[in-house]
Amino acid sequence: MSDARSEMRRLLAQERCGVLSTLHKAHGGWPFGSLAPYALTAAHEPVFLFSTIAEHTHNLRADPRASLLVQDSDAGDDPLAGARLTLLGRADAVAGGEREQALARYLARFPEAEGRAAAHDFAPFVLRVERVRWIAGFGSMGWFERAQWV
Amino acid sequence: MSDARSEMRRLLAQERCGVLSTLHKAHGGWPFGSLAPYALTAAHEPVFLFSTIAEHTHNLRADPRASLLVQDSDAGDDPLAGARLTLLGRADAVAGGEREQALARYLARFPEAEGRAAAHDFAPFVLRVERVRWIAGFGSMGWFERAQWV
Repeated sequence: MSDARSEMRRLLAQERCGVLSTLHKAHGGWPFGSLAPYALTAAHEPVFLFSTIAEHTHNLRADPRASLLVQDSDAGDDPLAGARLTLLGRADAVAGGEREQALARYLARFPEAEGRAAAHDFAPFVLRVERVRWIAGFGSMGWFERAQWV
Repeated sequence: MSDARSEMRRLLAQERCGVLSTLHKAHGGWPFGSLAPYALTAAHEPVFLFSTIAEHTHNLRADPRASLLVQDSDAGDDPLAGARLTLLGRADAVAGGEREQALARYLARFPEAEGRAAAHDFAPFVLRVERVRWIAGFGSMGWFERAQWV
């Protein structure tokens, strides 16, 4: 298990953008995918910087349940042969000291986002991971719980 | 609008793999993202070849609502600057003549899937598009309805 955790964390640290699935508020809770660049907290949880007018932000304010799929961008022509993981959790805007830490983490990875980070209409969100679906490649997969992740 | 439709269809035809968001049956309807290679029907709707034991297949059998996010793989280091679209619809297993057409479309794009296509535990699904979210790049986006797509 610790080997799988190391591989999962390595993949998550290597990549910079995933696909966030949320429940679409204006379309009856439909599952909705959108692109989400992310950084990581010290506990290996994704940090996002979301515009208050984005579809996924409206969705998360109504229902914070979400998942983030991250795939190995080096997998080449056959993505199904490559590793990927889906982190399931609740994504909430963070406040106070946690907000400052999350912003610092995000800007360390995306310095070009400094202007957005200072704007009133952008807010850092953290995905509190509850479960992880890990697929290392064809036929090698498993589920992990929060205690095995953070 | 017809320009946007042409661009959307071009992107969808250019790419071969998207991220499917479904409602996770075993995890209380949580939005769940998974990789999904796709072909296209004559009506520009995605065709998948799903294993009966895959998570997303269990999810779709319980609730066919889904979305497929497809992004421009040529966008490079800044995926948010690139075009992407999210197709919202219901994904169902297809039967009879429609099944044969869907399989033929899928195999034309993924000839290496021939063994799977013939197996009992794989089935072609079609996503019946109801709405499309299109983002051409920063600040250029819109929603389109089914009648504007097929």
